[in-house]
Amino acid sequence: MVDMKEPMESHIYAPLLRASVSQWRQQGKKGVWIKLPIQLANLVEPTVKEGFRYHHAESDYLMLVHWIPDSPDALPANASHIVGIGAFVMNNKREVLLVKEKHGYFEGKDVWKFPTGVVNQGEDICTAAVREVKEETGIDTEFMEILAFRQTHKQFLGKSDLFFVCMLRPLSFDITKQDSEIKAAQWIPIDEYVNQTYNREHKSFEYIARICSTKSQGSYGGFSAVRPSSGKQNYLYFNGQDFKP
Amino acid sequence: MVDMKEPMESHIYAPLLRASVSQWRQQGKKGVWIKLPIQLANLVEPTVKEGFRYHHAESDYLMLVHWIPDSPDALPANASHIVGIGAFVMNNKREVLLVKEKHGYFEGKDVWKFPTGVVNQGEDICTAAVREVKEETGIDTEFMEILAFRQTHKQFLGKSDLFFVCMLRPLSFDITKQDSEIKAAQWIPIDEYVNQTYNREHKSFEYIARICSTKSQGSYGGFSAVRPSSGKQNYLYFNGQDFKP
Repeated sequence: MVDMKEPMESHIYAPLLRASVSQWRQQGKKGVWIKLPIQLANLVEPTVKEGFRYHHAESDYLMLVHWIPDSPDALPANASHIVGIGAFVMNNKREVLLVKEKHGYFEGKDVWKFPTGVVNQGEDICTAAVREVKEETGIDTEFMEILAFRQTHKQFLGKSDLFFVCMLRPLSFDITKQDSEIKAAQWIPIDEYVNQTYNREHKSFEYIARICSTKSQGSYGGFSAVRPSSGKQNYLYFNGQDFKP
Repeated sequence: MVDMKEPMESHIYAPLLRASVSQWRQQGKKGVWIKLPIQLANLVEPTVKEGFRYHHAESDYLMLVHWIPDSPDALPANASHIVGIGAFVMNNKREVLLVKEKHGYFEGKDVWKFPTGVVNQGEDICTAAVREVKEETGIDTEFMEILAFRQTHKQFLGKSDLFFVCMLRPLSFDITKQDSEIKAAQWIPIDEYVNQTYNREHKSFEYIARICSTKSQGSYGGFSAVRPSSGKQNYLYFNGQDFKP
């Protein structure tokens, strides 16, 4: 794994890289990784010319790889899924915490929806749900269960998407909405939410709303989050009503 | 979205790109995407010099983006998660379909494990599970339920990982193992599997094995897969014992 940091001219870099690959081959190395920060974009072309391919990129760097031996390439896969959460938060008056969004898909549509958001790389699903609710509505919550999830495939960019419906228990009740993304945030009676027109016209929204409604009556087993080994950042989600470790 | 295909020299490309960005700005365009196949690696540097950043990369292309207006960048997130499956397949003699792997983490360890594999971009979790079992063992199966899933965060490359434990029903019983990856494949009594030393020493393996054992006795509600809208590639997973659409 070569983590390039200092600027270098490509006519100096290319012969150095060639000599290194030859040395790594003699040493019996298999997979070689080169991380090029975006400031070193001039080194992308010479790296590709030495037989490297792209592995993945983030905003500020490109990772290239080269599998040296003749055996099949055993390099790990690139990330394929964007992960999102929707938060079902109900108070003890059977009111649900809902928002209207300013931008994106729901812009201009008069739809009350769960607070939603993207799970960051390295972030736990249960943590992301609590964070998004706090950011969008100012409400403090505790993660309880995952009630359902949906997998979709995006035409655009070819990536896939996993969306987890999380039930959270509210720990505070006074809403302070985020102004940049959220047009309105309110506690709304659950039946009003379930029966809104949009849900009746969109099956997967209808199913999710009705699953939450079933859960609100106490008769639905979702997946709770357990850390099997204390200390390790590693959550296992399973039906905690039916299986007690 | 500019999908570059034909080779071009960078001194011709750079002024063309600059003129285009200026035109797009006048037209009120917001996000601009440029897809550069790896053969056009010479155009990465001039694209970055025009203010583009990396969005993501696959083996054979790099996607760059530029958000033109002064408003906050509303470009979609890059994929952050690798998704994998493990397949729990039991016949009616209470024997589980297990494999020993030749390479990777379990190489040299004497561990019987579920057939596992990576869910491809654009592939449904339930389809991936059936495909992996077929590839590794030759057994035909039908997807039943997701019993649990685990989220972990990888040090290496910074990506996160979602691993879904899928219960499948076998439709055939004669094993034909794949030679390149699989050292052994066999039907093994479930209790022998649950009690193997490795599981007792690794809590998340132990939990998963015991959840499967609980399920084998019929008293565990996992998540089944339903397509809310016929036609659309879009699965919703939820507790089908507790909620009937």
